[in-house]
Amino acid sequence: MPRICFVLQVKPDRIDEYRERHRHVWSEMRRALSEAGWQNYSLFLRPDGMLIGYLECEDFEACRAAMAATEVNARWQTEMSEFFTGNGDSAPDAAMQPIEEIFHLDGR
Amino acid sequence: MPRICFVLQVKPDRIDEYRERHRHVWSEMRRALSEAGWQNYSLFLRPDGMLIGYLECEDFEACRAAMAATEVNARWQTEMSEFFTGNGDSAPDAAMQPIEEIFHLDGR
Repeated sequence: MPRICFVLQVKPDRIDEYRERHRHVWSEMRRALSEAGWQNYSLFLRPDGMLIGYLECEDFEACRAAMAATEVNARWQTEMSEFFTGNGDSAPDAAMQPIEEIFHLDGR
Repeated sequence: MPRICFVLQVKPDRIDEYRERHRHVWSEMRRALSEAGWQNYSLFLRPDGMLIGYLECEDFEACRAAMAATEVNARWQTEMSEFFTGNGDSAPDAAMQPIEEIFHLDGR
């Protein structure tokens, strides 16, 4: 299963609120992500607001498109967009640029 | 299984060489990582040299200590240390500071 990593930047003065919002992600949003093929998906937040996403999916563009086609994602991304900086006019999900994987060890 | 993410900074003028070295990680090093409990371990390298590590392990401090106790890790970290910036006198593995996970979706 391919592994995807991306980085976004949360506004430093919105970090606590962003963290809190992610304790209560709508169950409808979680279900939509699962159905769109987003597996083993984690978000890590550094104290300076750097947000690192990691997920596993067969085809990231297909998983992203499947998610983008849902009504709940549109609502979620609209609410999240104000937390980010540096994305220009893009919604946060559109700004997720996969970073090159240079090493992998399954280790199991 | 807990998930760990860390960030290091590769010197911009050493990025290509760092990538190339990770195409040929010693099998002895890979085996040692597996035996020390480093699972599903990936490294992602951004064009500006930001290196993101992701792994899964029962107890990161224990996995790190188990790895630090191996002879092959000492040799590997010595060779890798010159690729990094901002670690002070620390070996790269000692500079791996886990970043807070604020969201997880298994999705399976």
